[in-house]
Amino acid sequence: MKTKSYAANSATTPLSPFNLVRRAPDEHDVHLEILFCGVCHSDVHTVRNEWHGTTYPCVPGHEIVGRVIKVGAEVQKFTAGDIVGVGCLVGSCHTCESCEEHLEQFCENGSIFTYNSPDKHSGGVTYGGYSESIVVNEDFVLRVPGNLDLAGTAPLLCAGITTYSPLRHHGVTQGQKVGIVGLGGLGHMGVKLAKAMGAHVVVFTTSQNKVEDALRLGADEVVLSKDESAMNKHLNSFHFILDTVGAKHDINAYLVLLKRDGNLTQVGVAPEPLEVDVSNLIFGRRNFSGSLIGGLKETQEMLDFCGQNNITSDIEIIPIQQINEAYDRLVKGDVKYRFVIDMASLRVNS
Amino acid sequence: MKTKSYAANSATTPLSPFNLVRRAPDEHDVHLEILFCGVCHSDVHTVRNEWHGTTYPCVPGHEIVGRVIKVGAEVQKFTAGDIVGVGCLVGSCHTCESCEEHLEQFCENGSIFTYNSPDKHSGGVTYGGYSESIVVNEDFVLRVPGNLDLAGTAPLLCAGITTYSPLRHHGVTQGQKVGIVGLGGLGHMGVKLAKAMGAHVVVFTTSQNKVEDALRLGADEVVLSKDESAMNKHLNSFHFILDTVGAKHDINAYLVLLKRDGNLTQVGVAPEPLEVDVSNLIFGRRNFSGSLIGGLKETQEMLDFCGQNNITSDIEIIPIQQINEAYDRLVKGDVKYRFVIDMASLRVNS
Repeated sequence: MKTKSYAANSATTPLSPFNLVRRAPDEHDVHLEILFCGVCHSDVHTVRNEWHGTTYPCVPGHEIVGRVIKVGAEVQKFTAGDIVGVGCLVGSCHTCESCEEHLEQFCENGSIFTYNSPDKHSGGVTYGGYSESIVVNEDFVLRVPGNLDLAGTAPLLCAGITTYSPLRHHGVTQGQKVGIVGLGGLGHMGVKLAKAMGAHVVVFTTSQNKVEDALRLGADEVVLSKDESAMNKHLNSFHFILDTVGAKHDINAYLVLLKRDGNLTQVGVAPEPLEVDVSNLIFGRRNFSGSLIGGLKETQEMLDFCGQNNITSDIEIIPIQQINEAYDRLVKGDVKYRFVIDMASLRVNS
Repeated sequence: MKTKSYAANSATTPLSPFNLVRRAPDEHDVHLEILFCGVCHSDVHTVRNEWHGTTYPCVPGHEIVGRVIKVGAEVQKFTAGDIVGVGCLVGSCHTCESCEEHLEQFCENGSIFTYNSPDKHSGGVTYGGYSESIVVNEDFVLRVPGNLDLAGTAPLLCAGITTYSPLRHHGVTQGQKVGIVGLGGLGHMGVKLAKAMGAHVVVFTTSQNKVEDALRLGADEVVLSKDESAMNKHLNSFHFILDTVGAKHDINAYLVLLKRDGNLTQVGVAPEPLEVDVSNLIFGRRNFSGSLIGGLKETQEMLDFCGQNNITSDIEIIPIQQINEAYDRLVKGDVKYRFVIDMASLRVNS
């Protein structure tokens, strides 16, 4: 099926209209019309080949909310008209230890990501959500709670699960003190989710002009990370810190803020190594760890949690024709807090 | 009570005979004659003021095995003639969260270490085990299983618990694959303990000439860490890795060997920061952590475990008069695997 999309044809050319071909849905597939697609920093990294390995043309987008058009004969969970989501994953082996534990993002035979992954159907690569529709195996399609704003829901499929999963995995709960480092697309979701879990949330930022917004988003305290005396007041006090900064920074300044047995989890992929003073881990038996999106079961749990707590992302809606400017603004951090493409713009005029 | 010992009078002078004064035991104290004292790398760091903060004269030694001479009126657990141990700790507040969880090494009001810690009794600093006797509160005295060689037991009080605690804390058990990085005083204990817990033990070393010895100590496999193809065979396969290397080294080479959710625990205090590629933590949800000796309850558990499994340290016994040469050899890694001072040498001739 011919499908309108936006694609990059090389690392250095702007995204532009592209007609891709979606497969006809098989008996286990769901065909959905895409309503909204969030713009993740990973999209920019991939389009610009900053992580290497990009196959062109590249159609990015893995924060997808849409309406089911048609389902395969064997599909039980969805029916035409349902509002659904698709996140970073569209396939996995279903048989390895990770898949059996509902951690498809760590599939030992290779997770199939929503874009730029080998596509066994086409023989090429997968094409993502900057398009009018997508065909996805039912196991990788999620139910969207009826009460949520659909545009604001799109970023939950990546930014939401990326922050929800480590908060849950490390047992964040009522009354715990939780730090969020960095207030961008990921960080602002971390604040909302940790707060909804009952934590006392402290935001760390380098920007004085983010303080007010952090409090509005639900933070109990905001600390300017360059203010050493403000930092020192929090020594040895955090159960958990979620670090969303995807650039080189001083991780030791945060490790020492953890209580004994506390955990700092990194979800931002810094391109350069971070220097860790191991004495900060040894004295206090502290943990430094990573986390990668989440499995399908947990992503559904996150969406349901967001439905119950009426949580969506703070967004700026753009037509797809503004995607290249949006990338430039995203790289400069000039967005509160996620661009979301209104895919109606693609149908009307591309 | 005047007590013979060996002390350092400055960071640059050799250890030499010193008469210290031990307090008279109070009702909760145990007075013990020291039979053996292990020589830990921390002793050298402290004597040479490499960690700063050393008060002189400094009497090191925190791997103590001795015989009870006398107990205070209220002491129930010990009686004259008992063979007992004293490790790195001789006091803590007993009331903080860490103490209540039997983790006195993390006492939030300040653990009292066996040497070079503030001594509330004398007003000076604590003096350690390079001496003929010591007076210690009963809560910090441990029972030594009757079947163990006493000289080989001394290093269990630091090297033993330092390796036992993280193996237990991270749930090492039957059939798991466990790596031990570095084969020195700590590493060789790690091999014996992990093996006794039923793990499949792989030793990583830079020295071809340690391969045979690693196998003798119980390792199932030995990998030369400079051999990239040998390392690659172990990618994504370890439940747990214990890293005992106290110098700057490539931690990423080991992080990538962990399975998903695996843990690498550092017990060697490298003076320089280690560079961590966070993608190695994120992809695989891996954990990098630290561990510091162990609490008293766990130290007793470790001694009992060693008794049941007939585990002691491989040692070289020296008279105290050879302590300065032993330090030089220790710094060069020329010991298999721990020097232990036979304290009879101090009584005969000092």
